Amino acid sequence: MAYLSRNFSPEGRELDRLLRRSSDTNATVQDQVAQILNRVATEGDAALFALEEQFTKAKLASLSVSEEEFLEAEALVSASLKKALREAASNIRFFHEAQLPQGERLTVATGIELSRKIVPIQRVGLYVPGGTAPLISTTLMLGIPAQVAGCKDVVLCTPSDASGKVHPAILYAASMCSITKVFKLGGAQAIGAMAYGSESVPKVDKIFGPGNQYVTEAKKQVSASCCSIDMPAGPSEVMVVATLDADPGFVASDLLSQAEHGLDSQSMLVIVGDKEGGFAFLDRVEEQLSLQLKALDRQTFLLSSLAHSHAIVCPTLEQGAKVVNAYAPEHLIINTTDPSELEALVVNAGSIFLGPYSCESAGDYASGTNHTLPTAGWAHSTSGVSTDSFLKKITVQKLSKQGLSDLSETLVSLSEAERLTAHRNAVLIRLGGEI
Amino acid sequence: MAYLSRNFSPEGRELDRLLRRSSDTNATVQDQVAQILNRVATEGDAALFALEEQFTKAKLASLSVSEEEFLEAEALVSASLKKALREAASNIRFFHEAQLPQGERLTVATGIELSRKIVPIQRVGLYVPGGTAPLISTTLMLGIPAQVAGCKDVVLCTPSDASGKVHPAILYAASMCSITKVFKLGGAQAIGAMAYGSESVPKVDKIFGPGNQYVTEAKKQVSASCCSIDMPAGPSEVMVVATLDADPGFVASDLLSQAEHGLDSQSMLVIVGDKEGGFAFLDRVEEQLSLQLKALDRQTFLLSSLAHSHAIVCPTLEQGAKVVNAYAPEHLIINTTDPSELEALVVNAGSIFLGPYSCESAGDYASGTNHTLPTAGWAHSTSGVSTDSFLKKITVQKLSKQGLSDLSETLVSLSEAERLTAHRNAVLIRLGGEI
Repeated sequence: MAYLSRNFSPEGRELDRLLRRSSDTNATVQDQVAQILNRVATEGDAALFALEEQFTKAKLASLSVSEEEFLEAEALVSASLKKALREAASNIRFFHEAQLPQGERLTVATGIELSRKIVPIQRVGLYVPGGTAPLISTTLMLGIPAQVAGCKDVVLCTPSDASGKVHPAILYAASMCSITKVFKLGGAQAIGAMAYGSESVPKVDKIFGPGNQYVTEAKKQVSASCCSIDMPAGPSEVMVVATLDADPGFVASDLLSQAEHGLDSQSMLVIVGDKEGGFAFLDRVEEQLSLQLKALDRQTFLLSSLAHSHAIVCPTLEQGAKVVNAYAPEHLIINTTDPSELEALVVNAGSIFLGPYSCESAGDYASGTNHTLPTAGWAHSTSGVSTDSFLKKITVQKLSKQGLSDLSETLVSLSEAERLTAHRNAVLIRLGGEI
Repeated sequence: MAYLSRNFSPEGRELDRLLRRSSDTNATVQDQVAQILNRVATEGDAALFALEEQFTKAKLASLSVSEEEFLEAEALVSASLKKALREAASNIRFFHEAQLPQGERLTVATGIELSRKIVPIQRVGLYVPGGTAPLISTTLMLGIPAQVAGCKDVVLCTPSDASGKVHPAILYAASMCSITKVFKLGGAQAIGAMAYGSESVPKVDKIFGPGNQYVTEAKKQVSASCCSIDMPAGPSEVMVVATLDADPGFVASDLLSQAEHGLDSQSMLVIVGDKEGGFAFLDRVEEQLSLQLKALDRQTFLLSSLAHSHAIVCPTLEQGAKVVNAYAPEHLIINTTDPSELEALVVNAGSIFLGPYSCESAGDYASGTNHTLPTAGWAHSTSGVSTDSFLKKITVQKLSKQGLSDLSETLVSLSEAERLTAHRNAVLIRLGGEI
């Protein structure tokens, strides 16, 4: 049995078809989300309590996590998990601190000084999915850059279970990032609460974090009106590029670790080699998939994801690079003889993993890079979350009278060409001219 | 007659009301734009020719500007305007080159190397409005950072007049930025053409530039599905903060230069001073408004914009700063006794102009800062266009076997806590462990 579709050197429409993501904008989801957002905007906390009860069965006494619950959570997290979170946090912090920009300060000409002032976004909201796969690591991936950037108010929403409890490791990770405002909210209602504010939940300026289709749709809807978001999100995906000398077991393990994320994840394999050798290598990957699959939980997710995943054999590295850049994968694993050779050709990807020992899990958890990355082809135009995502750059200029005077001929000429008389006058009046 | 509403130290809901932007999402515009985009997506060039004829009356032989038309345009632009464009371009280039990031390269631990690879967005589309106020300067403000960033394919759309001609200075400015692909397209159809591509117009990854409500709505719609945009745009706005020692004539000229942009521009004035002194200063500004208005074209725009503009007297600088940060103005002019004192308190603004001689016109045209800035309160969470806007940062990691091994305990612990077995296995198989 073959898990992946088998393709040799596809071109044109055939290649387009293989690289297309399933993007079914579900009108029902859109309507449901719009209704939830509207309820949250108009009814505030009352809607939030009711919606949480409806979706999680939890009858909450308070939306916010109490100090006692934070202490309880700390006691529940094992020493080994705490140690792991500390090491991960340390690496993430190191990399994200290095990303802090300085801001420029320039004198363009005498009396014309320009600079960029770096300011943290004041109020940010982080969404951390709970449920069957509690994304503990996401708490660090969003909380640390928010802290490094210096955001003033950081709010975190994550759903509770039916008993009204939040996953203890998520709370522990939140407190590692000095986040104290945690709310028991999931789904579209969590996004609405942060976008509009309620009696309990403070309004924020920008919302970050992954989620299911309701969360994603809610982020899309609020971003059209009143609140920024980190990026449009879609199902997670990996593209592995391998040459024939790669270890098929490593390759299979990377495809599987992506496929276990959800029903609609995608694991793409690009094999650089001739047709015969490429398909022979693919056979060995398939064997490994079959073998490794047996040991895994989440069989439904794995089989569903693999069912819409493809293997593409490309005769040259250049053709492989073309496929990579056309697909613009969220995660790109380059498991080739000389990884840097292909890396130099890559212009569209969220995050790149070089060589046989750089598995995606490393970046997902603890090497230090951020795991919040552009999916669904958005890597053509956007970057993953970084410290930059939590900062603004405000341009500042200061002109002296002389500086303005030296520039005035240019300003007058351009404002006249654009027929904006008042723009011209704002210059002339300052220089004592007739207006 | 008073042009601005007069308010002293407003708080709470009263302040909210004054700072609210008029944001009427017009359902008719939404539908019209959706229909235009759909036509462009399905019919391509045929739709583009038909729509341009419908909106501009131009019967175009070709959508693209020919080499002859570029030469013709060059001959039509006056020597003085060319000189002005050259000086503006030189300053803009200087500031935007200084913004080029380096990318970090770090060794987190032995065998764990992280970096960020800076890559230009490959295909970008620039929209430059034509018509009654041809935004020649916008061509430089978008074309120069695209060139500095190194974008591979740069497409520019701007509407022609009824005779099928594009404003010569826009073409001349485009060629100053080495842009050769200019298309005679305006409105929602221009945005659709760049987002989807057509027989004539190449598809792009990100669209930049200002425009009327149809352009803005079209950018919003395509950004929800297939193409990034620079920022959500709204009517242009300025907030001037003045102390009682400011020149009322300068202040009035700045309010007017904003108000002439369109029917729905907003010119806000914050006066720092006691009630009596503040209102007396306001009287002098009103006098100047009345005086200066007479000399201006575009009376309809000016009067309409001023009609929904407000003056707010704040007794302290801190209160003034609170108003500024709540409004998050696109342009902030600080015309106070000590501008840097207030500047230090500002966290939400698009661009700041310090002192009596830094009029907005300077930044609009030629000091070197970018004039594409966040409006409608988006300065709470977003920055103006800069070289960054044309770049992506791709994280790259390379782990050695030793590096992965040293990190493995942490990776295994975290993947088990998140119940992602395949993530764990991708680590273990590389270290020869049992999976």
